[in-house]
Amino acid sequence: MATASFDADVTRIMLGVNESSIKGYPHASISSKSAFDWTLNKIIRSNTAGFKLLFLHVQVPDEDGFDEVDSIYASPEDFRDASRKDKINGSHLLEYFVKRSHELGVACEAWIKKGDPKEVICHEVKRVQPDLLVMGNRGLGPFQRVFVGTVSEFCVKHCECPVVTIKRSVDETPQDPVDD
Amino acid sequence: MATASFDADVTRIMLGVNESSIKGYPHASISSKSAFDWTLNKIIRSNTAGFKLLFLHVQVPDEDGFDEVDSIYASPEDFRDASRKDKINGSHLLEYFVKRSHELGVACEAWIKKGDPKEVICHEVKRVQPDLLVMGNRGLGPFQRVFVGTVSEFCVKHCECPVVTIKRSVDETPQDPVDD
Repeated sequence: MATASFDADVTRIMLGVNESSIKGYPHASISSKSAFDWTLNKIIRSNTAGFKLLFLHVQVPDEDGFDEVDSIYASPEDFRDASRKDKINGSHLLEYFVKRSHELGVACEAWIKKGDPKEVICHEVKRVQPDLLVMGNRGLGPFQRVFVGTVSEFCVKHCECPVVTIKRSVDETPQDPVDD
Repeated sequence: MATASFDADVTRIMLGVNESSIKGYPHASISSKSAFDWTLNKIIRSNTAGFKLLFLHVQVPDEDGFDEVDSIYASPEDFRDASRKDKINGSHLLEYFVKRSHELGVACEAWIKKGDPKEVICHEVKRVQPDLLVMGNRGLGPFQRVFVGTVSEFCVKHCECPVVTIKRSVDETPQDPVDD
């Protein structure tokens, strides 16, 4: 594969990143930031030239409908606006990670895909063949997990590359631990 | 914890290592070597001063009895000899990893514990608090896994630190994939 052989001399780490689920907080999720910080501080360290970061954000189309409950799609323009808004949100998220990587001198690439996050991440791993996939994880107990599912558990089982999941630290857990 | 704060400035990676299960092949298992090589090539790279490797070998007392089928324990001396033999085997295994680390200039520590590998590894993670646990994995399918179990799956679920499992490459798989 062209990408893989071209970058053969650096370690390519893919990070699955998403937005916070906390209402009115339009930033990277706490667990995405934790996964990014862990990768920088514990793996890349001072060896910025030895690594390349690949940021993947998967947008769920309409998700459960609650976010879009006030939107009425009456014309093709409405769909165009909605998808432009989605793109702006996604780009805003990726901008945070790309900006910080550039400040630190770590090469990176970032892109957005639509679909079911767990399926899309595994598909992108197969396509891009990173050396490691780093995923954030809310560190929920089994009871909470039943209701929210976890993308990272699926990826650990099914992705065709080594996967490490990084839990949020306890002092970063929001009031409702299901939030992120 | 004393160890953790003393080493706060390096990334401490624990590797669970074991011996090959192939008869007459008294060396590190294929998956242990794969996990070690992956850690060196993909994570540590040229930054040898930024990392410390912690090799843990867990010896299973008597395991399923097949290895010791010719040994008869008739006196306390027999037990002493057996445990000395175990120690020699374990040290021989750890010597391989320690020697290679020293050749490359990577700081390391290595030790042997007795017990159920999955339980002991999780216990040692709790005690030593590494930044990452790297485990080898035979990459068996679900059918083969039912019969042999996997220590790494247990550790991913239960260890109190990020865990990554590294599969053997396809061309390193022995004739019987359950061997390692």
